Amino acid sequence: MSAPALGQNCRAVLPGPLRLDGGVLLSPVEIAYETYGTLNAEGTNAILVCHALTGDQYVASNHPVTGKPGWWTRMIGPGKPIDPARDFVICSNVLGSCMGTSGPATVNPATGKPWGMSFPVITIRDMVRAQGMLLDHLGIGRLKAVVGGSMGGMQALSWAATFPDRVAAAVVIASTARHSAQNIAFHEVGRQAIMADPNWNGGDYYEGTPPAAGLAVARMAAHITYLSEAGLTEKFGRRLQAREAKSFGFDADFQVESYLRHQGLAFTDRFDANAYLYITRALDYFDLAEEHGGVLANAFRGAATRFCLVSFDTDWLYPTSESRAVVQALHAAGAAASFVELSSPFGHDAFLLDSPELNRVVAGFLGNGR
Amino acid sequence: MSAPALGQNCRAVLPGPLRLDGGVLLSPVEIAYETYGTLNAEGTNAILVCHALTGDQYVASNHPVTGKPGWWTRMIGPGKPIDPARDFVICSNVLGSCMGTSGPATVNPATGKPWGMSFPVITIRDMVRAQGMLLDHLGIGRLKAVVGGSMGGMQALSWAATFPDRVAAAVVIASTARHSAQNIAFHEVGRQAIMADPNWNGGDYYEGTPPAAGLAVARMAAHITYLSEAGLTEKFGRRLQAREAKSFGFDADFQVESYLRHQGLAFTDRFDANAYLYITRALDYFDLAEEHGGVLANAFRGAATRFCLVSFDTDWLYPTSESRAVVQALHAAGAAASFVELSSPFGHDAFLLDSPELNRVVAGFLGNGR
Repeated sequence: MSAPALGQNCRAVLPGPLRLDGGVLLSPVEIAYETYGTLNAEGTNAILVCHALTGDQYVASNHPVTGKPGWWTRMIGPGKPIDPARDFVICSNVLGSCMGTSGPATVNPATGKPWGMSFPVITIRDMVRAQGMLLDHLGIGRLKAVVGGSMGGMQALSWAATFPDRVAAAVVIASTARHSAQNIAFHEVGRQAIMADPNWNGGDYYEGTPPAAGLAVARMAAHITYLSEAGLTEKFGRRLQAREAKSFGFDADFQVESYLRHQGLAFTDRFDANAYLYITRALDYFDLAEEHGGVLANAFRGAATRFCLVSFDTDWLYPTSESRAVVQALHAAGAAASFVELSSPFGHDAFLLDSPELNRVVAGFLGNGR
Repeated sequence: MSAPALGQNCRAVLPGPLRLDGGVLLSPVEIAYETYGTLNAEGTNAILVCHALTGDQYVASNHPVTGKPGWWTRMIGPGKPIDPARDFVICSNVLGSCMGTSGPATVNPATGKPWGMSFPVITIRDMVRAQGMLLDHLGIGRLKAVVGGSMGGMQALSWAATFPDRVAAAVVIASTARHSAQNIAFHEVGRQAIMADPNWNGGDYYEGTPPAAGLAVARMAAHITYLSEAGLTEKFGRRLQAREAKSFGFDADFQVESYLRHQGLAFTDRFDANAYLYITRALDYFDLAEEHGGVLANAFRGAATRFCLVSFDTDWLYPTSESRAVVQALHAAGAAASFVELSSPFGHDAFLLDSPELNRVVAGFLGNGR
């Protein structure tokens, strides 16, 4: 194999096989990733950034489809808590996603056609194991830190539980150690919306029309859970669109309707419906305690990893109580763990938005304070 | 006109016209209703019960489609807070619904075909005005009480605001005086799910296949808002269906998935998708303050109506703060208003479930205590 690529738009095709939690051996394993900065001679400055459900590897570079800046340039960049001038940053598209890593939209080498729904169901731990393979490929033994919000935080927790010797520190933001019944319920609505779209066609739509209408509805339902009730009220309230009065029709009269429709439609330009099915399934399956005999603390016993957990007070998707439960388990396991609940009006989405407090917490924890 | 029908499966065809808030004159106005008990000689024992979004007139009689008992037999019946042995109970299917009252599924006399989306958009106040026409038809001048939960509570508030001289008392349970941005957002998801179903066909499906898949998704999304997070956890948690392990597939692995799918499917057997669009629109338009110069208290000034408001502590659809805001407005208007927040693990749905406390509150307020 040639030397691993570094920088932008990288892609590794690893022979594997990767043994998935569902029992399937996946081979090869394609991983699309971005790196920023340079690995130091001691190999001690690597930070893995893990993305959320609909995120991707373009954490600090422009998105190739939308042209928009990376999704976490507030956290990663010059003078930011994670700084490529000091840290070697890796962010890979998760297994099952649709930005170049193996998933339902990639080609099954056995058939020469996209996997579709014949792609094996994967778990958060499978995503983490694939990332471990990528780090092997890049020659990185041990991470300075693994950092993520939402599903990225779940990967950070799973990293510490799966490869305790490879993670010096884990930053877990607006996340949880397991999906609740309500979390599962919202995802099930989204999956049913996609599968109800005739264009979904059992997942076999790559040569036809994708199920954009179903995927847009799924995104709309999920989007509500990313925002707080107070944030929605502050941002939109009952304000009407640029009209003087109600239309007494079914157009988007209220600004919040128009906003949601836009969120749904814009999403379909950049995301694959089958990938949405697979990743939501992985999230719903996530229960770190269950993987360790039903006791969450067992996931972390003997780990030398330091943990930093952050929650937001208006996040009702993964509320503070979920972070507290993780911290209690970490303390029970004897792990070093700090925790802070930050105040924000923006609900779950707060971790992606401008938050000087979040930046201070992460910079301080990583020893990257100015 | 012949004497008005009383009892079960009644239907009045009233010439109208009914001038709707949207400006349309609706004529005739068909109203399907049930009555229980007998109007006393003085005409002082009439209680109007108002139903919620997906409810109907079968409040205390078996549903003609599902065969199930009435939706509020815990509140209405022998020995209950509202007792047909003492009270004359009326419950009518709301305007825009699909159980016999004028709505998108009924025939437009001008065309001889179902209205579909040519039915005029209606408001909560339009529903109330139609009920007023029904009471005129039944010879009932003044109500002993108007009682409702959720959308039924909004009608009760609108009754007191629209016909203050005709309502001696109003019971408003688990309700609000306006739909919030989050309320609107959830409904918009449901509407988009219905409209995304190709079978919806612009609302013209009455001679074809109805958009059951879209309607089921709408119901699933809404259903989550009727339950509390804690209630979902208690009822389902992460328990699997009758299997020993995860399937690593997309069948309903979790009990909560199976439950939601069932709720969605069962709903499509008894409800019309267009009616769902119209009634959610009426709910989203509801803002009692806006109808009165932006000041909620103005809706109730000079009213002789006594009010009783009840909220449930785990209801996040119409949380206690919404009821408190109504009570403050009532007090500001000089109206007599009592308020209680009840504790229940069941979220918004609590008003439909067994609640001895709720029954005591309603019975006491109506002077129907034993």
